[in-house]
Amino acid sequence: MNPTSLHRNHHGVRHKNFRRRSGAPIPVKKPHDIIPPLGESIRIIPLGGVEEIGRNMTVIEFGDDIVVCDAGIKFTDDDTPGIDYILPNIKYLEERKNKIRAIVITHGHLDHIGAIPYIIDRLGNPPIYTREFGALMIQKRQVEFPHLAPLNIKIVDANDKSIPLTSNLKVRFFGLTHSIPESTGIIIETPYGDIVNTGDVRVENEDGVPVEKEIEQYSIFKNRNVLLFTMDSTGIEKPGFSPSEASILKNIDSIVAGAPGRLIIATFSSQIERIIAFINIARRYGRKVLIEGRSMKANVDIIKHLNLVDTSIVIPIEDITKYPSNKIMIIATGAQGEEFAALARISNKTHKYVRLDRSDTIILSSSIIPGNDRAVDKLKDNLYRSDAKIITYLDSNVHTSGHGKRDELKWLHNQIPYKYFMPVHGNHYRLKMHAELAVELGCPRENIIVPDNGSILEIQDKGAKFVRLKEKAPSEDMVVEGLSIGNISEVVIRDRKLLAEDGIFVVIALVDARTGRLKKSPDIIARGFVYLRESQELLSEARGIIKRSIEGTTIGMNPINFDYTKNALTEDVARFLFQRTAKKPTVIPVILGV
Amino acid sequence: MNPTSLHRNHHGVRHKNFRRRSGAPIPVKKPHDIIPPLGESIRIIPLGGVEEIGRNMTVIEFGDDIVVCDAGIKFTDDDTPGIDYILPNIKYLEERKNKIRAIVITHGHLDHIGAIPYIIDRLGNPPIYTREFGALMIQKRQVEFPHLAPLNIKIVDANDKSIPLTSNLKVRFFGLTHSIPESTGIIIETPYGDIVNTGDVRVENEDGVPVEKEIEQYSIFKNRNVLLFTMDSTGIEKPGFSPSEASILKNIDSIVAGAPGRLIIATFSSQIERIIAFINIARRYGRKVLIEGRSMKANVDIIKHLNLVDTSIVIPIEDITKYPSNKIMIIATGAQGEEFAALARISNKTHKYVRLDRSDTIILSSSIIPGNDRAVDKLKDNLYRSDAKIITYLDSNVHTSGHGKRDELKWLHNQIPYKYFMPVHGNHYRLKMHAELAVELGCPRENIIVPDNGSILEIQDKGAKFVRLKEKAPSEDMVVEGLSIGNISEVVIRDRKLLAEDGIFVVIALVDARTGRLKKSPDIIARGFVYLRESQELLSEARGIIKRSIEGTTIGMNPINFDYTKNALTEDVARFLFQRTAKKPTVIPVILGV
Repeated sequence: MNPTSLHRNHHGVRHKNFRRRSGAPIPVKKPHDIIPPLGESIRIIPLGGVEEIGRNMTVIEFGDDIVVCDAGIKFTDDDTPGIDYILPNIKYLEERKNKIRAIVITHGHLDHIGAIPYIIDRLGNPPIYTREFGALMIQKRQVEFPHLAPLNIKIVDANDKSIPLTSNLKVRFFGLTHSIPESTGIIIETPYGDIVNTGDVRVENEDGVPVEKEIEQYSIFKNRNVLLFTMDSTGIEKPGFSPSEASILKNIDSIVAGAPGRLIIATFSSQIERIIAFINIARRYGRKVLIEGRSMKANVDIIKHLNLVDTSIVIPIEDITKYPSNKIMIIATGAQGEEFAALARISNKTHKYVRLDRSDTIILSSSIIPGNDRAVDKLKDNLYRSDAKIITYLDSNVHTSGHGKRDELKWLHNQIPYKYFMPVHGNHYRLKMHAELAVELGCPRENIIVPDNGSILEIQDKGAKFVRLKEKAPSEDMVVEGLSIGNISEVVIRDRKLLAEDGIFVVIALVDARTGRLKKSPDIIARGFVYLRESQELLSEARGIIKRSIEGTTIGMNPINFDYTKNALTEDVARFLFQRTAKKPTVIPVILGV
Repeated sequence: MNPTSLHRNHHGVRHKNFRRRSGAPIPVKKPHDIIPPLGESIRIIPLGGVEEIGRNMTVIEFGDDIVVCDAGIKFTDDDTPGIDYILPNIKYLEERKNKIRAIVITHGHLDHIGAIPYIIDRLGNPPIYTREFGALMIQKRQVEFPHLAPLNIKIVDANDKSIPLTSNLKVRFFGLTHSIPESTGIIIETPYGDIVNTGDVRVENEDGVPVEKEIEQYSIFKNRNVLLFTMDSTGIEKPGFSPSEASILKNIDSIVAGAPGRLIIATFSSQIERIIAFINIARRYGRKVLIEGRSMKANVDIIKHLNLVDTSIVIPIEDITKYPSNKIMIIATGAQGEEFAALARISNKTHKYVRLDRSDTIILSSSIIPGNDRAVDKLKDNLYRSDAKIITYLDSNVHTSGHGKRDELKWLHNQIPYKYFMPVHGNHYRLKMHAELAVELGCPRENIIVPDNGSILEIQDKGAKFVRLKEKAPSEDMVVEGLSIGNISEVVIRDRKLLAEDGIFVVIALVDARTGRLKKSPDIIARGFVYLRESQELLSEARGIIKRSIEGTTIGMNPINFDYTKNALTEDVARFLFQRTAKKPTVIPVILGV
């Protein structure tokens, strides 16, 4: 009797012989460096969000105290099939959790708060400072994690006094403009000066001129000593100013005014300020509002709870038939082509209440997130199969981003006089471009550091020096997959990619341990390889190959070396399948001696 | 002894109990309709390219004759893992192959010629009419298919006389502008009037005013009777005119003039006219040219063969060290972030000859094809980690599309007076938008048909009527996967997607057929599920579950109903794994009675 391939070399024999299309080598992880003690410096460590868009988290450490700014997740992509979310690596924090005085939150989007339920207990449940809207977004999510201890949330105001966290560190929140209510920037006040993090930010403007409110919001920086400025880089590539949110809403208002029938508006559920505005527009034209989509409903509940808009015109979807179509506005998720979202169901005629007709108007009030292009194309194809009128941001001014474009970033740099600059929130190339912008605006190149995840930056000598240590904090991806949270398994991910390309081919053979002969014709299980019902000839040839391969080594061998036999079998079967199909399924041999 | 799960219901038990994330129902294929005889009509059937961008092919049938316009492939995407290419379904043609008089080719790009090696023998090897450049592109590809009979290629000129194909049908090629030399439109002359297909097309212009050459190219239509106009819809969504190719080249010329060191230009290998221009620019500034990338080299060989440019300054990459860096221009593939392309190797420091430094200039002379965003981001991240200067189409005018934008399409409509219109080459929504444009320009709505792949359109009553039959030609995807060409197997594709998400979990148990007891602890093979080396506890619990599940049904059962036992086992194991991990691997039970 012989152990299964479970304990075999996972790479398998075939990898020696066939070069894999997607078989990149598995990176060898080196043990993380020994990090020197802090001394008198202020340490800044971005643990996420600086090699990507998402999972924002920055550590500020001084003396005996740590403040963590934001705790976001990133969504998975094709590179990590089967993974749910990617988290910042919090090992550095776990090892110093008794120093953590606070998590401070800039705003309630998932790329800034989503990691909280996965990490909060590992960090010793520190207090979370956030404005009320962020608190509600955090608590809404926390409901899905009933096993966790209650959060210690401290609700703060913006533009209020500084809040002392320790004898050395204070925090102050200031209001700014993004796409969700109560978005803030954060000032960590240290003895040597301020560390300012804008969070996500845009600048409301009229044809490129910032509105009065924007100027006011940043007026507090006139008399401050900003040591380090750290800022959103998402929109750096796009020139100019974004269209103003006011112009978007004015445009949508006029579309609603002229719409002969139902109005269906799809946007991100995170665009909460715009959703509030849509409800106001509906009221202006006497339309009832129907909310479609789980996350959209949840966010409207929060809006309602905070009384941010009169939601008395919001009616349940079942009541849609009680009103004429020109009295209806549906606000729905699904503008990114999400497969089961309300808009997808409307587009493919599987929605319970809505079938599109010529009088309907559909507004896709969103841009396309990179990677979603094909899904959005499919959605639009389906929508255009109806006679409804479809309006997207390409046809008309119906969406603007929550992240400022290049000239908005430039304006912000000019509002905040700072000494050092660290671009955050973006891929490396966006950060580099943002750093170049700062240089253009007069910041000395040596005062700028473009970090990686886990880079340890220090402000040393009471503010006189800004350096990057050669050591790094642990920064390997932490992932959420089902119920598990931990390091990503490169082996498992690689196997999934191989399986997705060519499938799996399992051979099960019963061998008479005495004679070395097969006790019966071998069994074959394949998934994702070729359609076996239509490949009977291939299978029967494969059985012949298997029999010859096994018996060619086992007959006369005493005792039978099953490892040897299995390696030969794997190679023979893989070669045969490749010759016959040019496919390279993962071949797994199971040989049972009886 | 019991057959393996090979012959089991492929859906498996677990699908009854667990809703799959990506488990969309498998569409039921209905047998294709019985297509009525042709009669006196002209039949037009787009077999590909009208529900997508790619695999262009249109059938024109009249009397006893069929002419096929183009034979392209489409590349696969995430929806079809493991598939190499998608072809037009040619069943309609196979059933009528004795009627096929010609395949006519508009230009040598793969979405217009790539299907030829896969289908030409199934169509009875009809003659292929193409201009010389297209012929070379076709023959270059054909070399990879040595088992095929030689192609019957007839090289034609543009703007020449009509070529009689049969007593009823003539074909005439006319020159137009795209991004590859000798791009043409095609006129099929029928007794009732012309059928005109532009192929892929743009309009060279100066700030939105078409250049003289463009006006000349379409002057032949002044006195023609165009019955049906069919045209590229790719660029319909984008307003205005594209930047002119001349302005792009002028801009790149000035970048090259000012570059202090090496110049690395990445573009599509299919942008052949631009590559010719790059070589001319290099000569102007005394730079040697190095060609990197297999497809780029192959296309430069064709350019050389046709003497389209003096290639004496092209040197092999090994010679790069013989010249100072300001005398070097590298033209490379890889601007889409292709993993193993030259530019990727340059960016990640694995290129044999090139390490980037501050004096290098890199131009990405291409846009980002939807779906490649993340790969391009990764490429740019790596490039920006060097000190080289990087210029993309977002920063500067270094790329224009081969497909005309909306105002170019508009101008083309105005050059060709036609009766009927069929938009092609694009997703459904692009075709719909193109149809709306034609309506705007004065074409009666009833003279326009937006087809699907396989739609059968007829021009009836000697040109008096343009209709769509209710019957359709077969249009299911035909795919190339390894060595096989055939229908796509939805089952296999679905399995691959499931495997990519959650992996596979195979249970192998030897049961004593007499007692119903396990002969040994069950074997487990998993791939792509969880990392088993770190999940020993899970495995040992699973073995307990397996033993209890099997023996719970088999002990005392005589004879043992293995199907019943396996179904119960699958369900028990899947439930256990889901409870413990929230993952839903494909569970496959193998129970061997001995």
